[in-house]
Amino acid sequence: MTSLEGRKRVIISNVFPRVDDGKYPAKAAVNQSLTISASIFCDGHDTIAASALIRHSTERTWREIPMKLLVNDLWEAPFKPEKTGFYEFNIQAWIDHFTTWKKGLRKKAEAGQTLAVELQIGAGIIEKAAAQAPAKDKYTLLQFSHVLRDEQNPEKALLLALSDEPDALMFRYRDKNLITRDSKVYRIEVERQKALYSSWYELFPRSTAAQEGKHGTFNDVKKLLPRIAKMGFDTLYFPPIHPIGEINRKGKNNSLTASPDDPGSPWAIGNRLGGHKAIHPQLGTIKDFKSLLAEANKHGIEIALDIAYQCAPDHPYVKEHPQWFTWRPDGTVQYAENPPKKYEDILPFNFETDDWQNLWQELKSVIDYWIEVGVSVFRIDNPHTKSFAFWEWMIGEVRKQHPEVIFLAEAFTRPRLMERLGKAGFNQSYTYFSWRNTKQELEEYINELVNSEMKAYFRPNFWPNTPDILPDMLVHGGENAHIMRLILAATLSSSFGIYGPVYEFCINEPHPGKEEYTNSEKYEIKHWDWNVETRIAEVITRINRIRKNNQALHDTYNIQIAQTTSDNILCYVKTHKESGNILIMAVNLDPFNTHGAHVKIPVETLAGIDVNRPYVVHDLLSSDKYRWIGEWNYVQLNPYEMPAHIFRVEQ
Amino acid sequence: MTSLEGRKRVIISNVFPRVDDGKYPAKAAVNQSLTISASIFCDGHDTIAASALIRHSTERTWREIPMKLLVNDLWEAPFKPEKTGFYEFNIQAWIDHFTTWKKGLRKKAEAGQTLAVELQIGAGIIEKAAAQAPAKDKYTLLQFSHVLRDEQNPEKALLLALSDEPDALMFRYRDKNLITRDSKVYRIEVERQKALYSSWYELFPRSTAAQEGKHGTFNDVKKLLPRIAKMGFDTLYFPPIHPIGEINRKGKNNSLTASPDDPGSPWAIGNRLGGHKAIHPQLGTIKDFKSLLAEANKHGIEIALDIAYQCAPDHPYVKEHPQWFTWRPDGTVQYAENPPKKYEDILPFNFETDDWQNLWQELKSVIDYWIEVGVSVFRIDNPHTKSFAFWEWMIGEVRKQHPEVIFLAEAFTRPRLMERLGKAGFNQSYTYFSWRNTKQELEEYINELVNSEMKAYFRPNFWPNTPDILPDMLVHGGENAHIMRLILAATLSSSFGIYGPVYEFCINEPHPGKEEYTNSEKYEIKHWDWNVETRIAEVITRINRIRKNNQALHDTYNIQIAQTTSDNILCYVKTHKESGNILIMAVNLDPFNTHGAHVKIPVETLAGIDVNRPYVVHDLLSSDKYRWIGEWNYVQLNPYEMPAHIFRVEQ
Repeated sequence: MTSLEGRKRVIISNVFPRVDDGKYPAKAAVNQSLTISASIFCDGHDTIAASALIRHSTERTWREIPMKLLVNDLWEAPFKPEKTGFYEFNIQAWIDHFTTWKKGLRKKAEAGQTLAVELQIGAGIIEKAAAQAPAKDKYTLLQFSHVLRDEQNPEKALLLALSDEPDALMFRYRDKNLITRDSKVYRIEVERQKALYSSWYELFPRSTAAQEGKHGTFNDVKKLLPRIAKMGFDTLYFPPIHPIGEINRKGKNNSLTASPDDPGSPWAIGNRLGGHKAIHPQLGTIKDFKSLLAEANKHGIEIALDIAYQCAPDHPYVKEHPQWFTWRPDGTVQYAENPPKKYEDILPFNFETDDWQNLWQELKSVIDYWIEVGVSVFRIDNPHTKSFAFWEWMIGEVRKQHPEVIFLAEAFTRPRLMERLGKAGFNQSYTYFSWRNTKQELEEYINELVNSEMKAYFRPNFWPNTPDILPDMLVHGGENAHIMRLILAATLSSSFGIYGPVYEFCINEPHPGKEEYTNSEKYEIKHWDWNVETRIAEVITRINRIRKNNQALHDTYNIQIAQTTSDNILCYVKTHKESGNILIMAVNLDPFNTHGAHVKIPVETLAGIDVNRPYVVHDLLSSDKYRWIGEWNYVQLNPYEMPAHIFRVEQ
Repeated sequence: MTSLEGRKRVIISNVFPRVDDGKYPAKAAVNQSLTISASIFCDGHDTIAASALIRHSTERTWREIPMKLLVNDLWEAPFKPEKTGFYEFNIQAWIDHFTTWKKGLRKKAEAGQTLAVELQIGAGIIEKAAAQAPAKDKYTLLQFSHVLRDEQNPEKALLLALSDEPDALMFRYRDKNLITRDSKVYRIEVERQKALYSSWYELFPRSTAAQEGKHGTFNDVKKLLPRIAKMGFDTLYFPPIHPIGEINRKGKNNSLTASPDDPGSPWAIGNRLGGHKAIHPQLGTIKDFKSLLAEANKHGIEIALDIAYQCAPDHPYVKEHPQWFTWRPDGTVQYAENPPKKYEDILPFNFETDDWQNLWQELKSVIDYWIEVGVSVFRIDNPHTKSFAFWEWMIGEVRKQHPEVIFLAEAFTRPRLMERLGKAGFNQSYTYFSWRNTKQELEEYINELVNSEMKAYFRPNFWPNTPDILPDMLVHGGENAHIMRLILAATLSSSFGIYGPVYEFCINEPHPGKEEYTNSEKYEIKHWDWNVETRIAEVITRINRIRKNNQALHDTYNIQIAQTTSDNILCYVKTHKESGNILIMAVNLDPFNTHGAHVKIPVETLAGIDVNRPYVVHDLLSSDKYRWIGEWNYVQLNPYEMPAHIFRVEQ
């Protein structure tokens, strides 16, 4: 204990954002509005002050952001990171003896008590600060104390004492010896904006040929780019593009035997032509792929690759690195299984291999290779079936060199595993949104994502469907449900995605007894007529335009759930404070029936709305405008017309 | 990274009990039933196993307690500490390849798959374990693998494989290289049982004289011991017993001027006769006090002293250690104030003094002195107005030498400060119970105390009244309310107390405009007729007997709130599993009217109750018995008869 330590009386705890007590960094994106908070208090009745000290890891000096007391000893400071990389922050707090004295003085003055001694005490505090100050400031402070000590002129003394004139200098020359500085420095990893705000479209490149029956190529995809860009997507995501295993290849509808012309599942990676760094020859060459990347780039679209760390039985790794697999006593490699189920076309890596260090390096080199080619966004297949320690290491290493790289975790597993993947470094994650349908389910889930500790490290990406998931709601609710679920995904979460063609064209026939598409594109090549115009596609285009034009939709954590009088109407508000952008979403969750409800707008918390005056809400979907007043207002939504309002508040 | 680290696939997090990430120990009492828990999982589908390693700080070897999976990757181990002091614990977990294999084998067998290779794999796992085992166990294991490898006798092999015969040895010789051991060792401070289970009676010794108008003495208190013991209290707590300041002494009802015969407030400590280590002469001598301690001891009663770290203006410290106080420019010492309020009879210590180390030592020496005299229980006055750092140091130091000492924090302040005092080491704390009256308020508060992280470090002591607090409920609810609030305090919390005489005799006239007693005993000597028998006192005696005889009431954290159909009826269940003691409390919160309600008993969770058969509930207050069946049963309570049932479940 140093000779000062025991005199420090301010306590700092519950610092946030803080992930596993600082073991992992919190996440943020450039320009995201963050709040740094802590519980701060001292014994007794003294006034305290606090500030957050922040710096980018490349900076030497700390920026000091004053904190404000909110409620119940919770202090907050706003912070908006300007660049990617790691920021460090730390909280400091101290007893503000000058303000304590000033507040007491005011109360004593109001109570008509004698103040002569009080003013002398104040002068003493100022002189103590003056002793710390260099020439000019010292002089100013001593002038203040001179006024306070002038017993001939107590009114003038009181006036100065109660003014805010001395405050800035008294702050600057506060007694720094007694500042409590929290013992821990916490980190925030700041990523590019896309980590927080992105719109994904998934398609199988092999299904993009103009002519039915032909295998699609990267060049075919190129032709679709204007269409995808026009729909407003910024990320085009492909299932694995590598050579597909020929041994134990699956046929249509996941059947155990493939006919000679079955293309197989793209997730059964690798054959005699190559593995995770090779391209399936029918899609094109590496040159074609690079050309596609360049062309996509012109349209503001990034290509996201799917990385599935698993092998078909004929993947070159099996012969080159047999020690990375589990071998059975009969000399065969152990395939993936979840007894009694077997996945004969897939060999998992054995993360307990003695050769784990080489395995990790090789798996990382796959990412490095595609980064080199020009890819910056990766969707990772089933990360929860590979070692968490590996992810933590791999993502950390990749991002050291390439902070622009984004990893989306394709995990639909148990909560603790989902959370851990976020902590381990995944920038985005799939979620349970696909199965959250009722108002209560959606409200509870949103609340968990944005109001629990998860908000510090888990960034949701909402998908109404995927090639693996055709939820009942889309089966039974048809076109209306597709539109409703799309609007929910795209306005609840700042990142969302769809498995595109089937969604646009409202393909929704389930495989019997499963929550999956029948005749799934996973096992066969499809042909789509890209010229068909659908109501769903039209809404997608509108939604993406609305997302682009309204900064309130560029964040997920700015959401407020609004009370409604109907279990069928979900209502929520999103705001972007700096631009004054306020959106009110009201969604009819029933795809078949018209419902109405009163919705309670939290006007008190919305800077743009005058509680006592009418405000205009402008529906960006229909262009209709309504004049609303106060908290409670009425909406009615017919799902056959449009299942939602997206109101922008206008003054 | 060591060469094994990367192969460990199990993740351990959210360890509980854990206070501020292990900075502070969790609290427990000897024989308290604790649960150690953690989130534990691994990638993929493998079966895992986990155990808690625990040892007393005086032990060298770790005890291993197996953990069980509860739900959602939450694992738990029961732990009951046997002795006081610090225990350390740590969680370890590993992938149980043998059980993973066994489960898969069973499923494959059930699905009729061929098992020949599977049995070879199992034999291999067993042989790997055998390689770790010494002679005899190695031989047994190799016999097992021999059976599994015997292709002539697959039925026998399967039978052995699916039996639990190999389990114990396979556990013992599991691959210890791949065990994940949580990086942190957490501590639990175990205190004597009284820290958790205690019944307090507060009286002013000066008001115990047999003859009206005389100053009570320790010898007078001695005569009351049989009465207090008969009522069932184990702790007799005195306000400060030191010389009372004569300068600025307060008169009756806290008036600014005392008349010559006003005794002053015992909390204005110190005068020319001494300070915190002296005894007010009119109470007796140190010898009298020691004699009282000895006599109390015979009755199973401990004397708790009140330590108020503050001084009257004539306390010897002011002259001896002027540097411990704040001096004003006019040469006076700064008295306590909360502007514009002033407390002229009280001088606070300045915890920012440069001489803080000597101040801390002297304040600790006060406790040391009274421990030396024979006191082990201290009620600390207003700890939240003294430096938290001081408490942490002082309590830690005292308990190193005297783990039997108990500190009760007299804090009724903001939540974060209450919590911090618990973390800083206070063994018990006053609570907000005094102001929690409605069913919702009580349920929420109990829930916060026993189901939040607070349960690890904050031990409540429920007081319906104190010399400072006469709640409205006691004023308006009269005798019935006194009985109802007493029953609540004594059955919700395993530690409770009353400011006794006024409670027993139902004195409840408030000081106008305040939540305090008028003509408060704090400022004058009272005379009580101890022979008056009251209904309240009779219930107190019964309640304390019930507490003593039912182990379910010796714990606070074993409470389950039960649903009821009336807002006036609060119902809760407490259980002591080992003894099978189950109590059901139902309390009418309205002191004026009879209320009935159906109450939902969580029979599924109560080991003693057969869901399908009637059970007898025996009211320990009235001796009535009822035959109940299943969850929902009916109670009706007339507050003029008895506002509560305390049912013991009998088979």
